[in-house]
Amino acid sequence: MPATKDLRIGIIGYGFMGRTHSNAYKQVPQFFDPPLRPVLKAVCGRDEANAKAFAERWGYESIETDWRKLVARDDIDAIDICTPNNTHAEIAIAAAEAGKMVLCEKPLAMDLKQGQQMVDAIEKAGVPNTVWYNYRRVPAVTLAKQLIDEGRLGKIFHYRANFLQDWTISADLPQGGAALWRLDAAAAGSGVTGDLLAHCIDTALWLNGKIHDVCAMTETFIKERKHNLTGKVEKVGIDDACAFLCHFENGSLGLFESTRYARGHKALYTLEINGEHASIRWNLHDLHRLEYFDHRDDSIVRGWRSVHVTDGDMPYMKHWWVPGLQIGYEHTFIHQFADFLTAAAEGKPCPPTFRDALATQAVCDAVLDSAEQKKWEDVVPV
Amino acid sequence: MPATKDLRIGIIGYGFMGRTHSNAYKQVPQFFDPPLRPVLKAVCGRDEANAKAFAERWGYESIETDWRKLVARDDIDAIDICTPNNTHAEIAIAAAEAGKMVLCEKPLAMDLKQGQQMVDAIEKAGVPNTVWYNYRRVPAVTLAKQLIDEGRLGKIFHYRANFLQDWTISADLPQGGAALWRLDAAAAGSGVTGDLLAHCIDTALWLNGKIHDVCAMTETFIKERKHNLTGKVEKVGIDDACAFLCHFENGSLGLFESTRYARGHKALYTLEINGEHASIRWNLHDLHRLEYFDHRDDSIVRGWRSVHVTDGDMPYMKHWWVPGLQIGYEHTFIHQFADFLTAAAEGKPCPPTFRDALATQAVCDAVLDSAEQKKWEDVVPV
Amino acid sequence: MPATKDLRIGIIGYGFMGRTHSNAYKQVPQFFDPPLRPVLKAVCGRDEANAKAFAERWGYESIETDWRKLVARDDIDAIDICTPNNTHAEIAIAAAEAGKMVLCEKPLAMDLKQGQQMVDAIEKAGVPNTVWYNYRRVPAVTLAKQLIDEGRLGKIFHYRANFLQDWTISADLPQGGAALWRLDAAAAGSGVTGDLLAHCIDTALWLNGKIHDVCAMTETFIKERKHNLTGKVEKVGIDDACAFLCHFENGSLGLFESTRYARGHKALYTLEINGEHASIRWNLHDLHRLEYFDHRDDSIVRGWRSVHVTDGDMPYMKHWWVPGLQIGYEHTFIHQFADFLTAAAEGKPCPPTFRDALATQAVCDAVLDSAEQKKWEDVVPV
Amino acid sequence: MPATKDLRIGIIGYGFMGRTHSNAYKQVPQFFDPPLRPVLKAVCGRDEANAKAFAERWGYESIETDWRKLVARDDIDAIDICTPNNTHAEIAIAAAEAGKMVLCEKPLAMDLKQGQQMVDAIEKAGVPNTVWYNYRRVPAVTLAKQLIDEGRLGKIFHYRANFLQDWTISADLPQGGAALWRLDAAAAGSGVTGDLLAHCIDTALWLNGKIHDVCAMTETFIKERKHNLTGKVEKVGIDDACAFLCHFENGSLGLFESTRYARGHKALYTLEINGEHASIRWNLHDLHRLEYFDHRDDSIVRGWRSVHVTDGDMPYMKHWWVPGLQIGYEHTFIHQFADFLTAAAEGKPCPPTFRDALATQAVCDAVLDSAEQKKWEDVVPV
Repeated sequence: MPATKDLRIGIIGYGFMGRTHSNAYKQVPQFFDPPLRPVLKAVCGRDEANAKAFAERWGYESIETDWRKLVARDDIDAIDICTPNNTHAEIAIAAAEAGKMVLCEKPLAMDLKQGQQMVDAIEKAGVPNTVWYNYRRVPAVTLAKQLIDEGRLGKIFHYRANFLQDWTISADLPQGGAALWRLDAAAAGSGVTGDLLAHCIDTALWLNGKIHDVCAMTETFIKERKHNLTGKVEKVGIDDACAFLCHFENGSLGLFESTRYARGHKALYTLEINGEHASIRWNLHDLHRLEYFDHRDDSIVRGWRSVHVTDGDMPYMKHWWVPGLQIGYEHTFIHQFADFLTAAAEGKPCPPTFRDALATQAVCDAVLDSAEQKKWEDVVPV
Repeated sequence: MPATKDLRIGIIGYGFMGRTHSNAYKQVPQFFDPPLRPVLKAVCGRDEANAKAFAERWGYESIETDWRKLVARDDIDAIDICTPNNTHAEIAIAAAEAGKMVLCEKPLAMDLKQGQQMVDAIEKAGVPNTVWYNYRRVPAVTLAKQLIDEGRLGKIFHYRANFLQDWTISADLPQGGAALWRLDAAAAGSGVTGDLLAHCIDTALWLNGKIHDVCAMTETFIKERKHNLTGKVEKVGIDDACAFLCHFENGSLGLFESTRYARGHKALYTLEINGEHASIRWNLHDLHRLEYFDHRDDSIVRGWRSVHVTDGDMPYMKHWWVPGLQIGYEHTFIHQFADFLTAAAEGKPCPPTFRDALATQAVCDAVLDSAEQKKWEDVVPV
Repeated sequence: MPATKDLRIGIIGYGFMGRTHSNAYKQVPQFFDPPLRPVLKAVCGRDEANAKAFAERWGYESIETDWRKLVARDDIDAIDICTPNNTHAEIAIAAAEAGKMVLCEKPLAMDLKQGQQMVDAIEKAGVPNTVWYNYRRVPAVTLAKQLIDEGRLGKIFHYRANFLQDWTISADLPQGGAALWRLDAAAAGSGVTGDLLAHCIDTALWLNGKIHDVCAMTETFIKERKHNLTGKVEKVGIDDACAFLCHFENGSLGLFESTRYARGHKALYTLEINGEHASIRWNLHDLHRLEYFDHRDDSIVRGWRSVHVTDGDMPYMKHWWVPGLQIGYEHTFIHQFADFLTAAAEGKPCPPTFRDALATQAVCDAVLDSAEQKKWEDVVPV
Repeated sequence: MPATKDLRIGIIGYGFMGRTHSNAYKQVPQFFDPPLRPVLKAVCGRDEANAKAFAERWGYESIETDWRKLVARDDIDAIDICTPNNTHAEIAIAAAEAGKMVLCEKPLAMDLKQGQQMVDAIEKAGVPNTVWYNYRRVPAVTLAKQLIDEGRLGKIFHYRANFLQDWTISADLPQGGAALWRLDAAAAGSGVTGDLLAHCIDTALWLNGKIHDVCAMTETFIKERKHNLTGKVEKVGIDDACAFLCHFENGSLGLFESTRYARGHKALYTLEINGEHASIRWNLHDLHRLEYFDHRDDSIVRGWRSVHVTDGDMPYMKHWWVPGLQIGYEHTFIHQFADFLTAAAEGKPCPPTFRDALATQAVCDAVLDSAEQKKWEDVVPV
């Protein structure tokens, strides 16, 4: 076997996503046979001690405290952006201009305009790129895509998706800072729309095609929270909840909802697709199962099937254990990175690309505009 | 024991609802101890042979083929309206004017204006009345009401409800006539909005209070169907699917959807309410269960509880069997009629009254208007 | 339509089973088109006032306080035995000798020997007979039988059944008397074996054929309870729990368990059958669902199907409502009685007959013997 | 922070278990903060090319093809035995005599006598040891242990466990050789008893204490299969299915079953414990959930709770992601190894130790004896 070529990674950010991505970098070689070998070259973070501790734990060879230096390094092939949303654009554009591959956390940008600039830069540079909408690579979700592509569902009538959480119900929870930047509009851009609905939208565009128009409502249940950076009680700028109706271009109707005030749900991303012949359901709390209903079954034994997605002939699963033994959340990142390595080696795109993520951004923008204007909005084509 | 006073019933219509109501009339005395004894006096239908067969099967003493004659009879105390929606108003108003109690199938009317006329007539006559929104009296749903009234959920953030069916997907299905009047806009007024969403709205108003405004979309997937009465292919006037966003007056957000194109769902009415402290879920396919989540449980054993609503201390259940033994769909009508008899004997209203049903009608009207106008609509107060 | 012939019923016992059977007698004519018309002729019970109240509620024309008088009456066609187990034999034999049809509550007898005498008398008299093992006629269970008979499962490897309750865990619960005769060995014969496992065994013999040998263990967790009839604390003679292993004659292995000490289960009768090609699961807490797994499904969409047994092409369901609307516990008795009327009119047996129930008795006896002897026991052929 | 001391591992066997353990060695340092640092020193296997490939993939520094050489090496602290069951004893005893820590795959031995020799050797050497009964460290199972130890269940009445698979139903499947040694009695010792029931027994002894006596049945459905090593059709010596009844020393009743002929179940390990106050259920197909029923809940909201075991206050979960994000099968090994490192550093045992595993072996032996003798057998105390 010829020596595998190295792919040298510089990661920016050592928070939750820094962990999930680093784990993917370490795990891919044992479970897949990637054409490129990931090398954990450097981690970059503003706090040197934290960066060092992270580097030691995960095996990064070096650290940086200024992302510009990281981007400028000759020994880095790919930049992985795990920082808050308001920093994605600047870093991604600089990385692209430096000729680096770019892996960017979602949502792509603070808004569509910014996202367009990123896509322009990436496409001008022609570098491999991907955005970490990781749920496409839950095996059950990938299997859903396969079933749809095989035509098993027939014409689609309905698509519905929820992303329900309950962790911000307490009014005592502050906003902002390293741990809670997702509650700070300045850092996050939006609330559940960009954080949670963006996942639902990415999957929907992939599984069901383009969205034509949307009508949304948003709500901020807790109007003021102490801000961790200023220490003062400040207005909450994010949306705590967002729901929207939409029309897909294939004629199906869509219904989306996300909230952090759904008591009893920790991270319940659910989706359901109803087609002429068959339907599909999935949820993140039991991510290793796909529910499937096929009207062509004999009527007396027709019912929703609970498919335990653990067999070797199901997407990604031949790389893991044996039938009946489930995998978990972190594996979605491993799958995406394995696909990225293959795509990069073959000169092919690894979806969702920056351009794919821009389409999600366009829907998010239309959703937020619609909620603000209290009217239907067309989605800007990208 | 003193002799119970009789309540002499004249029922109009011998279709599906004629059966469910007649069964209630026959079953109440054995399982409840009603203060009034139902007497199945007469069934009225346009086809004499069918009416006779129905009367024989269910034990009605006589038949009529003209509802006006039934309403005029002195030996009838209560008129039960089980006819298509476009006939409710005329019959109900005549019955009220004749001083009869009125039990009316849902939805109340073809539109809000007509419904208002019905309420005016009923209230002017001062007769006992109820509308058969039967799902309030699924024991699990009644229990949900009890839990909310006890304050267990705290402030409500979210209400969502679906009513999903899949029986009209075939383009070969005709519209209209005795069996399929629900697909004929002239007879039904609307499609899923009045037939299915009206149930969801009635329950929601009961459990969560008034709705302030709505934004809806509707769709008719099959544009033309053969009409059973004319034999010709005609435009389909009903909505096959309807979804809407709304704001409740208590500040919570609502999301409703109904369709007859959700492959895999036969009659899946689901509802979920998320409160500050606790949440509730229920669905019609397993109507004897209530799911309940309470955040005040110890964190390590906190989870959705599947409550098997069959014990004697749960609503209505002491009248039936023993714990673990479930009841079914038809019992909801028995419960409503048992409550009606008690209320009538005590001179109290038996909700949902005509006025309660008018509030549901107001929401339905706003929903249909919103869908047509493609904009948010305020619900007219009633 | 010609006049239906009457079948005049005399019922003995007005407890829980008296109610379920009486309801069946009243409901069958509306939902089925039986060739014989049930007439509720008389109820018999030792307490005259209670018998009168029961007769009034259910519409029995007369009462008796001595079952021998009832059996002797010329205007009775069928005797329904709803009394404690220790009285079944005497009544059934007398009724058979009087030429009456006999419907007997389960278990058939106190032991195999007594049961054999009953079968002898019934078969000598040649009267229509049935034993109320009602769970065969849960539509989902009847459907299971149909699927097995169609050969869908192939060779059977495993059969397992549980019947789990939790209502006798408190040591303060007394034994004996009208309400609690099931805890009194003198009246019940055995505990969970005759009360609960007998149901599991009846279904198993029906679905999977004869049992060759068994090995059982029983336990009485609470050794003494106050007796309602004597007022004294007395030894508990029944089995609180019973589990057994067995071999079926078709080569499959069986595993059965019943207890009244399974906290969290009210009346959880579950069964599962594993065949070469397909498997089936069912439980009484969601009796309207059948779970079905078929290995011949495409591997990527293979999973347990949850079949909502409510459609018109499923056993018994065309007589009820529409797809998605479930029925409940009491309907099993209605189905059995409807079948009994048809069978009686056609001169055919209505299984489970007394002889069928004797086979269940033989297994129960072997189980209790095995538990006492602590060794494997062959089941006596019947 | 002081430098962590190294724990140098030599692993024997590079099959399925070689992968799961090696993954644990690589993953522990990133997710836990172990007091000892695992060093993947050597992998040993009879096929040099395979061993090299495995070493390269997992990062072992060297290979051996003779396990005796590995055991003799000075640069190895711990021997991990991942070979077929018939080799455990010889290797473990040699490793113990060489003063190595020993981590051994389950079941411990071919029989109780051999297991006793292993325990003697291990305890004489006084080396840290553990047996890979990994399911104790599914967080939900560990949580079950915690709930029991807190006394939440009260007196235990029932324990039941199944381990159901369906992968050997085809008569065309051969036995023996590298891939299928589990079907070869000479290599495996027994069939499902040692492979699957041993897991159930280990958990049961841990959660519910000692088993006093057992009564079992076993079956071999396919009597002959081609043997991969000889190429000839040979008698199958293993048990395809095994079920047993038992009494625990705490007075509760046990029911255990395992089979590879349960169509529809891939690796369905289920357990349920019924206590006086509360009950617990768990299954491996949804390993991240624990079901819990507490009778002390208010009666109207009492039901089985589905606890999503993903929060930071649940066993092991603070080391992983955030609430709602599930982990999978492989994590059980990571947890056990993390515990082993801590225990070894602190000089404490890491259960299940060899002695703990010997207790499981004693039950397995009693089960197999009972099945052969067709009678109850006492479990030999260990």
